[in-house]
Amino acid sequence: MGNRNAGNGNKKQAVVLLSGGLDSSTTLYLAKKSGFSCFCLIFDYGQRHHREIESAKRIAETAHCHYRVIKLNFLHKGSALLDRNVEVPKHGSGIPQTYVPARNIIFLSFALFYAETIGAKAVFIGANAIDYSGYPDCRPQFYRAFRKAAACGTKSGVEKRGIKIETPLIDKSKAEIIKLGDRLGVPFSLTWSCYRGGAHPCKRCDSCYYRRKGFKEAKIKDPLK
Amino acid sequence: MGNRNAGNGNKKQAVVLLSGGLDSSTTLYLAKKSGFSCFCLIFDYGQRHHREIESAKRIAETAHCHYRVIKLNFLHKGSALLDRNVEVPKHGSGIPQTYVPARNIIFLSFALFYAETIGAKAVFIGANAIDYSGYPDCRPQFYRAFRKAAACGTKSGVEKRGIKIETPLIDKSKAEIIKLGDRLGVPFSLTWSCYRGGAHPCKRCDSCYYRRKGFKEAKIKDPLK
Repeated sequence: MGNRNAGNGNKKQAVVLLSGGLDSSTTLYLAKKSGFSCFCLIFDYGQRHHREIESAKRIAETAHCHYRVIKLNFLHKGSALLDRNVEVPKHGSGIPQTYVPARNIIFLSFALFYAETIGAKAVFIGANAIDYSGYPDCRPQFYRAFRKAAACGTKSGVEKRGIKIETPLIDKSKAEIIKLGDRLGVPFSLTWSCYRGGAHPCKRCDSCYYRRKGFKEAKIKDPLK
Repeated sequence: MGNRNAGNGNKKQAVVLLSGGLDSSTTLYLAKKSGFSCFCLIFDYGQRHHREIESAKRIAETAHCHYRVIKLNFLHKGSALLDRNVEVPKHGSGIPQTYVPARNIIFLSFALFYAETIGAKAVFIGANAIDYSGYPDCRPQFYRAFRKAAACGTKSGVEKRGIKIETPLIDKSKAEIIKLGDRLGVPFSLTWSCYRGGAHPCKRCDSCYYRRKGFKEAKIKDPLK
């Protein structure tokens, strides 16, 4: 765990799922802009692009937010994001090999735990169903269903002071997200997107594809070399 | 992790959430009886009745099932089950202090991960909404909502080969569960229920209350001293 004195006073609190990529970083800055004191959850789940965790930590620090790294030992493999023996596919169609089973359900369930424990009013997640890899747990219908489950399955939900699950980027293109992040002052140079997690972005995986496309369409220069 | 050679051959697989109590143990034996080869998930989440974990391991071994203990470091406290500074309440009404925020959502999300990873057809959970402590995540409406979220948020769900989330005990009284377990040969002497987790059951907490009531109504002697 690491944290900073965020001096949140009596501000309303939010839990923000922070991966270190463009979307979650923009979501964090958007939550801050909306007046929330943000508590970031960063997951170390054995992803091969482990360096995104360092990016996430630096972004949380830059935003003067508390954060916690949660280590999940997913010893069963079966995703190109977890297993170095499985090749990270190039950008293509269908649900790709980089899909991690139930990932966002797991992340959201922890976010709910933290939100109820600290009395936060909202959970923010940077899920996006436009320029994305086709993961089922990034789509609006999943969030509609999960909100109901969270409302029925938690004390705060039953007591009608439920935690809002916010997906502010769900219907935005990558270019729109980048323009928004640019206006909010998101430190893009600190973000990391590439699934391969090498010294430099591979420029071939899905995540690099959408990042490059987004910056190009937004007519903004990507500061990440 | 620990496991046994279960010799499952080509049997259909299920993930079973096993706490070591009466309900989850009966659920395990019911899943086995239904023809599933069972993979048990046992959670070490800092519960004060830590000895239920040892019970769960012994029950999985007795049932000749694979199991895995998942350690979750819930460092934020705020529940009488996690924090020894909070008194475990006696049996009463309302959602008690032993409520752990989002617990079953977290457990189910891991169960989904394992089920998708190993190709299991079902997840079994011994949730019960009759003789229970009023936890929101034990009620049928939560499971109805969670099933939708799981179907929308996973690859198997989207591809219409979704994982069934089974709650076979949801509407049974504790006495009915005990009679069922008795018929199935559940080793009740190995189970643990007491929230206080001392050398002997405290006989005052919610969990002891329902256990005693159940055995009495079932007219079966509790073999646990």
